[in-house]
Amino acid sequence: MSDLRYLILADGLFGPEESKTANACIRYTPERVVGIIDASKAGRTAQQVLGFGGDIPVVGTLEDGLVFGPNALVIGIAPAGGQLPEAWIQLLARAIEHGLEIWSGLHTFISDVPQLAALAAKHSVAIHDLRRPPAKLTVANGRVREVAATVVLTVGTDCNIGKMTTQLQLLGALRARGIRTAFAATGQTGILVEGRGIGVDAVVADFISGAAERLVLDCAKDADLVLVEGQGSIIHPSYSGVTYGLLHGSLPHAQVMCAQPSRTAINRSDWIRIPPLVDFIRLSENAAAPLRPAPVIGVSLNTYDLDEDAAHRVVETVRRETGLPTTDTVRFGPTILADAIASFHQTRPR
Amino acid sequence: MSDLRYLILADGLFGPEESKTANACIRYTPERVVGIIDASKAGRTAQQVLGFGGDIPVVGTLEDGLVFGPNALVIGIAPAGGQLPEAWIQLLARAIEHGLEIWSGLHTFISDVPQLAALAAKHSVAIHDLRRPPAKLTVANGRVREVAATVVLTVGTDCNIGKMTTQLQLLGALRARGIRTAFAATGQTGILVEGRGIGVDAVVADFISGAAERLVLDCAKDADLVLVEGQGSIIHPSYSGVTYGLLHGSLPHAQVMCAQPSRTAINRSDWIRIPPLVDFIRLSENAAAPLRPAPVIGVSLNTYDLDEDAAHRVVETVRRETGLPTTDTVRFGPTILADAIASFHQTRPR
Repeated sequence: MSDLRYLILADGLFGPEESKTANACIRYTPERVVGIIDASKAGRTAQQVLGFGGDIPVVGTLEDGLVFGPNALVIGIAPAGGQLPEAWIQLLARAIEHGLEIWSGLHTFISDVPQLAALAAKHSVAIHDLRRPPAKLTVANGRVREVAATVVLTVGTDCNIGKMTTQLQLLGALRARGIRTAFAATGQTGILVEGRGIGVDAVVADFISGAAERLVLDCAKDADLVLVEGQGSIIHPSYSGVTYGLLHGSLPHAQVMCAQPSRTAINRSDWIRIPPLVDFIRLSENAAAPLRPAPVIGVSLNTYDLDEDAAHRVVETVRRETGLPTTDTVRFGPTILADAIASFHQTRPR
Repeated sequence: MSDLRYLILADGLFGPEESKTANACIRYTPERVVGIIDASKAGRTAQQVLGFGGDIPVVGTLEDGLVFGPNALVIGIAPAGGQLPEAWIQLLARAIEHGLEIWSGLHTFISDVPQLAALAAKHSVAIHDLRRPPAKLTVANGRVREVAATVVLTVGTDCNIGKMTTQLQLLGALRARGIRTAFAATGQTGILVEGRGIGVDAVVADFISGAAERLVLDCAKDADLVLVEGQGSIIHPSYSGVTYGLLHGSLPHAQVMCAQPSRTAINRSDWIRIPPLVDFIRLSENAAAPLRPAPVIGVSLNTYDLDEDAAHRVVETVRRETGLPTTDTVRFGPTILADAIASFHQTRPR
């Protein structure tokens, strides 16, 4: 995937909160990103909008972005439910006519839109639907228990709170310690960054845990430590099924809890209050325990909306309240969480 | 659906445990069932095999069953994962050639098998794939909270333990009390009995709770009490995602816990011990509570494999240990559970 030059569609939503896929590409594969489309922020840079990403330019239209020489259009925002807005179809058609590959993590498969599929065939352009499930999935049944690798799952109080980012931040730190570590990508963004994975939210419901099981078995073939990207939240009204299926299919030995201190209710579902973190940790451990005990061994906080002092204070408060190693892996680095995971990996009973 | 005459395929698996779909048809719509295909039990009656079902004959082949005048073939057993065994395709083809409609709850859609679809078109025979999800599902977001109806969900310690049966037993008893009661079918068998529903285990994972939400909203249009058919178990390694998605999409006001006293581990996954019922009840209440509190208000036991004395004793023991109304709704009738639900419905705070 080294020759990819992405133009990322994030129209109207490019920012720290909403453009999760765009932001992960910019953070973890900036060398691939030539520009971002968002008419509401045209003329600015990724750095100015996100606080990282350097000089990558934001442009107003597809055509404005073409001058930077992209060879692929990435859909960098994820509308609720993943449906394809009608207005985008014309933009995607123009991108294909300009020879750009399409990379999409939407539920609606771009290659299933007849107009776009025909156009892609005509122009010999590939369409990558990252959520399309692999064929012949099966139900899970604890086969993960047969592998020797240590499995660590990120879980969280809500969606879009740092479950993928935490694992990607930890990946390098654990490899640097000489541990053969794999990243099991379970969502479209993780798959885009890693180059492999299964979008577990897009499989048939009966096969969620089967998909998670297969992914962990695959990753464990050449790794001693598997970092599984969590999804959703055990209290999320829309996505909890995916969260639990992933938990019970991947059967982690340990969990890392992700939370955003400023968030007190589920995003866009504020009728659900997020329980105190200590209670939430117990709920998550209790959900795993009947299948395989998976203690929470660290906390990963997302403090991007706090100033430096407040961030330090909340990390210290959570560390004290939970008794667990706590950090913001982006702001303060992943070291103490990587230490905790490495120690758990090396000392857990086998 | 009153003119249906079912011949039910249950080859090799007709019995109290394995042929769940067949058994529910025989129990709740016996007037439709003309025969069961199972070569291993040919010559016996449903009564002899199941302990109910009267003189409905078991035959060895499709052709032997045709003499009873069926107009539909029902696939009455559910292989793990729902895949279509190759050997059945020829049998289904012959059924279609004899003019029988096909009713199937398998994950593999019969109408997607080119050979069978073509044959059905040629013979003007309908194929009903009960698990095919409705179009345009969305994610859930608590819309169930806006309806006035009381929602009661059956949950259970394992699959195939009585979650559908309990609701069907309760349905008549609650209607007899003058309460406008609806049955929200969530699996292929329930849909076959009720004539409507959504197979929540067959939708895309992100839409499990959305499907449950839509189903409850639909049922609440003409009912004051909605009995939702539960699926799986919160500790099931294969299906827990469906269980939790259904819980958080249907947002019950109360749960009824289903269990089989003789079962101490998950069926076919005996590495998972079923926790003591009191603990399991607490786990299930804790899973619901952050979204909407849903106390367990009764216990429905499946005692078919115990003798009468043992069944009475275990009902009494569980009633004492849990402090909840407890019965086997098939063996001892649903009255005390129907009483508990009616009382809850009439007195819950609004």
